[in-house]
Amino acid sequence: MQPVYVRNAWYLAAWANELKPGEPFTRTLLDEPVMMYRTGDGTPVALEDRCCHRSLPLSLGKIEGDRIRCGYHGLLFDAGGRCVQVPGQSLVPPGSGVRRYPAVERWRAIWLWMGVPAAADPALIPNLYWLDHPQWGAGTGQMQIKCGYQLIVDNVLDLTHLSYVHPRTFGTLAIAESPARYERVGDQVRIIRWILDSKPPGVMMRNRAMDGNIDRRQLITFLPPSVVTIEGWFGPAVAGRDQRAEPEGGFGICNVNALTPVSATETLHLFAEAQSYAPKDDAATNKLFTEVYDTFLEDIEVLQAQQRALLERPNRPMIDINADAGGLEARRIMARLTASDAARPAA
Amino acid sequence: MQPVYVRNAWYLAAWANELKPGEPFTRTLLDEPVMMYRTGDGTPVALEDRCCHRSLPLSLGKIEGDRIRCGYHGLLFDAGGRCVQVPGQSLVPPGSGVRRYPAVERWRAIWLWMGVPAAADPALIPNLYWLDHPQWGAGTGQMQIKCGYQLIVDNVLDLTHLSYVHPRTFGTLAIAESPARYERVGDQVRIIRWILDSKPPGVMMRNRAMDGNIDRRQLITFLPPSVVTIEGWFGPAVAGRDQRAEPEGGFGICNVNALTPVSATETLHLFAEAQSYAPKDDAATNKLFTEVYDTFLEDIEVLQAQQRALLERPNRPMIDINADAGGLEARRIMARLTASDAARPAA
Amino acid sequence: MQPVYVRNAWYLAAWANELKPGEPFTRTLLDEPVMMYRTGDGTPVALEDRCCHRSLPLSLGKIEGDRIRCGYHGLLFDAGGRCVQVPGQSLVPPGSGVRRYPAVERWRAIWLWMGVPAAADPALIPNLYWLDHPQWGAGTGQMQIKCGYQLIVDNVLDLTHLSYVHPRTFGTLAIAESPARYERVGDQVRIIRWILDSKPPGVMMRNRAMDGNIDRRQLITFLPPSVVTIEGWFGPAVAGRDQRAEPEGGFGICNVNALTPVSATETLHLFAEAQSYAPKDDAATNKLFTEVYDTFLEDIEVLQAQQRALLERPNRPMIDINADAGGLEARRIMARLTASDAARPAA
Repeated sequence: MQPVYVRNAWYLAAWANELKPGEPFTRTLLDEPVMMYRTGDGTPVALEDRCCHRSLPLSLGKIEGDRIRCGYHGLLFDAGGRCVQVPGQSLVPPGSGVRRYPAVERWRAIWLWMGVPAAADPALIPNLYWLDHPQWGAGTGQMQIKCGYQLIVDNVLDLTHLSYVHPRTFGTLAIAESPARYERVGDQVRIIRWILDSKPPGVMMRNRAMDGNIDRRQLITFLPPSVVTIEGWFGPAVAGRDQRAEPEGGFGICNVNALTPVSATETLHLFAEAQSYAPKDDAATNKLFTEVYDTFLEDIEVLQAQQRALLERPNRPMIDINADAGGLEARRIMARLTASDAARPAA
Repeated sequence: MQPVYVRNAWYLAAWANELKPGEPFTRTLLDEPVMMYRTGDGTPVALEDRCCHRSLPLSLGKIEGDRIRCGYHGLLFDAGGRCVQVPGQSLVPPGSGVRRYPAVERWRAIWLWMGVPAAADPALIPNLYWLDHPQWGAGTGQMQIKCGYQLIVDNVLDLTHLSYVHPRTFGTLAIAESPARYERVGDQVRIIRWILDSKPPGVMMRNRAMDGNIDRRQLITFLPPSVVTIEGWFGPAVAGRDQRAEPEGGFGICNVNALTPVSATETLHLFAEAQSYAPKDDAATNKLFTEVYDTFLEDIEVLQAQQRALLERPNRPMIDINADAGGLEARRIMARLTASDAARPAA
Repeated sequence: MQPVYVRNAWYLAAWANELKPGEPFTRTLLDEPVMMYRTGDGTPVALEDRCCHRSLPLSLGKIEGDRIRCGYHGLLFDAGGRCVQVPGQSLVPPGSGVRRYPAVERWRAIWLWMGVPAAADPALIPNLYWLDHPQWGAGTGQMQIKCGYQLIVDNVLDLTHLSYVHPRTFGTLAIAESPARYERVGDQVRIIRWILDSKPPGVMMRNRAMDGNIDRRQLITFLPPSVVTIEGWFGPAVAGRDQRAEPEGGFGICNVNALTPVSATETLHLFAEAQSYAPKDDAATNKLFTEVYDTFLEDIEVLQAQQRALLERPNRPMIDINADAGGLEARRIMARLTASDAARPAA
């Protein structure tokens, strides 16, 4: 299998609180080992996790101020990836250094640009305002999942699976029975589903004490290559509701998913859950987040079994159903973006 | 390594008591993942363990009466493998379904036909009458062994290994010193060995309180592609015994082996041990079975070490010895059956 | 990756005390499984660890006097690897046998010749006199390391890594700052480094109660294909020391490394540490050895991370630094020896 990624894009590499001062931190993105650290003023740095001398991961070395020293023979690198000292000799061989990845801290997260550094425009970072907006309270977490990121994109773009995989938390049978429509906005896909006049899901009974029938809206947005947001709205059941109008009253939650490829068959799923009903109430935020975490544990089992089945028998045919429409549109967009990214000059 | 199996044949997939009502059960046979369940009236069903929509194993789903519902997006399949419902839409895409394997319950076992369904003739199921005959008491068990099934066929067709691998239970040095003869009956091979006027093996001292010298006969039958029965007879030592005549007196035991291929290098060894000396006495049956189980644990170590050696150094030459004659005949039959099976139309 | 070894050479396969009377002992050298045992008079024997009949490792069999009997069907082999008995038949098939490796016990170690037996000249075994000389006390041990042996050769030929990997035991910053010179003597490489007028390393403070500044010399000798000795000398700091003269006074230690390839990515590192300051004092020898053992545990982490990095991204360029000079010379010698060994007739 030849993994193909969109390289000229921002990827969420870590939550900001995972990157601690003075401690090398390592992750693999798009098959590339990356080490991250913070300089003295807290600026995030991301370098290739491999010394240019004998290939030891730099993350086994020691941070010295704004720089990192290799733990094998002591070569010293600055935050730009340049080798600035070789112990025992006065000259550094010209051109010695390691690859640097543009790094930006935004939305309580560290974003890395995996393509040509000159093309790294922070304005292209997806808008995830829920993560540090005063009217929202948000918890964050992550899981490493043994499946390709595209399977998780499929998963979150088709929420009919909530009815069968997550009946204890977010799922009700009414979801699978309620058709969704999708629209394309530039390279993004938006999928909208109304679930009308039906029982609230378990998670909302527990967190918001809902019990009578409700109206519920799911608004899923695919932000290529690998971020998906799921905005949920819950409110009173209204007869003859106008499904084109923005709902009023009620409250919202937002599930943010960054599906950062580790390899063709492994993904770092960084996720957040925000709620607008009690933005300052950390206990309420944590209680909801815990249910989201448990919900994704259910997905892991499905996703990994699916990936194993695809690897073991790659050529079996698959059928599509109506609920796949939004996901298939996303796959078409990705095929085009991947091809045009591969055609881009490398430097 | 290109695994080649005889597909148009019955394979023992599970002991009947492994398949419980309401619980999906899964096994891999001939590299194919299979899920089994029982319909409301107990009839065994075997389907490809993979939803035709997004490849999740159906065994992660739920049984609903005679049908199975996928645990990802809720597609429903009947006992024939046809998809009969897709949630959220009124039509099922034509041709949707999964492969069905003909399944028959016989001799306390579930048999699957892995080839063309139309060719599945239950009359071809090997006769293992010892398993539910009133004059025999039989225990059953299974082990998954990391070696190709042919290595286990070789193992049970050449019982001289009892002398060296199993001296504590079934082996005596006299076995390796007693030549066997073999005969071919159609596509079957029968190997007969008399061990005359010698000490009984440990297992018979313990289970039947034998102590003086005995005569013993081993009658091994290879029923292609992967069943081997070993009928043992033990009786008084008789001078000048006619080795062509059926022995009288004494008692018999029968070891049944179904060596169902999981893959080219893994086998599900389903085995039974029957005895005729106390057919109604479960304690006697269990006591004997326990010794058989321990005996096969000794084989696992040998078989897996042998498979590892063959995989690591596949091209080293091997010599044959006299005791291999029956096994070599079985290999010739299998080569012919495999070739003619591969030449058979697929539908 | 195509592993290439020098086969016509002596390899240290085991410390003498690992090979116990009556017990088969197994190691893999140069991708070949070898089983060793001692005959009745203690002579070491090394045979291919694979029966010529059905490939079971002979190490699962039983030693009978000077011979080994296979644990599957009882074939018996003598110390020359010839099959001398097949149970149940009077004749042994002509030519039956397994490969024998010339084996010699010297310097408290078992040495095997992995090439053409006729070329096995014990005079070619490296001189490791420290191991059983009355003026030295030596401890021995071994570790299996998941990296190619050449990475460990590189490691021990460039001791600047002591400054960064082993600051607690043998390393001081002065080592990396002190240039080394190397010389070639036939196919051997000698690397000499003086570290003058500087603090003693932790291991010598603890084992020899050194505290003031010292002079220290490292004399590293590469004995192809895979033995490296490191002779250390420690003595008083002397102004204007003649670095070409043999030092007087002080004391010596010697670290012996046999880096026996298991496969292209795994090595058996057999090592010894000898000291001349208290040759009869086992407690002193053991105390020093324990620190050496802990020091190599630090290397394992580095070496395995380096090997993983090289396997994951094999084509990344590497730069050389001044400290690599001796190691690069060793690599040139090995390239020549490997090519001429491969060109040698096989029998």
